[in-house]
Amino acid sequence: MMTDISYTFQPIGFIRSDLTRREDAPRQGYEGAPDAWIEVSASVAQALHGITVGDALIILTWFHRSARDVLQVHPRGEIENPLTGVFATRSPDRPNPIGLHRVTVLEINGNSLKVGPIEAIDGTPVIDIKPVLPQSADS
Amino acid sequence: MMTDISYTFQPIGFIRSDLTRREDAPRQGYEGAPDAWIEVSASVAQALHGITVGDALIILTWFHRSARDVLQVHPRGEIENPLTGVFATRSPDRPNPIGLHRVTVLEINGNSLKVGPIEAIDGTPVIDIKPVLPQSADS
Repeated sequence: MMTDISYTFQPIGFIRSDLTRREDAPRQGYEGAPDAWIEVSASVAQALHGITVGDALIILTWFHRSARDVLQVHPRGEIENPLTGVFATRSPDRPNPIGLHRVTVLEINGNSLKVGPIEAIDGTPVIDIKPVLPQSADS
Repeated sequence: MMTDISYTFQPIGFIRSDLTRREDAPRQGYEGAPDAWIEVSASVAQALHGITVGDALIILTWFHRSARDVLQVHPRGEIENPLTGVFATRSPDRPNPIGLHRVTVLEINGNSLKVGPIEAIDGTPVIDIKPVLPQSADS
């Protein structure tokens, strides 16, 4: 336990992808990741209103296969890279394994969005969807 | 319940800010938000190793005061803006109220990072910390 407080969430949807094995997934979306569908739960489908093809979105996922007790890693899994705290890396193994993916909306079909590129594997829970803010360098 | 599956997390730390009321918080960090401290739990402090002053980070927070049953909003709270799905907006009210904040590290003191600008109010739980990826437009 990191703190005495805990929070619970239910996924708003799931990734449907041809990527099925974590070891086949690129480390980042821009490193050759495929497109995938996000199947959004019918109960929150109203929250998609206003999203259109071509939009730039941030998808937040929960890396459900991650090791949550890992605090330091060799970045990119290469032993020559010195041990680094996971908060200074994008390691999927981390205390709260949230994935952050910048994608473009390619197609919309009912409650499902086709987006890409995205390195999350099939079945990955989706926590939230946000627009990229054009005013900001981030998002 | 959005799905039958739920996940639980403990915050990795908390925001310590002079901003104490949600109604005083700017809508985005770059709209005049202050600097704040992130107090990281000692149990995960090793995960900070490698973060240095000047780094650009993404801070993920949990907007614990949000309404999670809101699916559509008038963007920026302005009634003239047509009702829009929260996944197409940055509304803090949303099914899983995750905040995404791009900040710069200003100071490091033990397990605490001074960062800014950040519009999260005092006491906001912090879920994760990630580096901005220079290769990517996102993050």
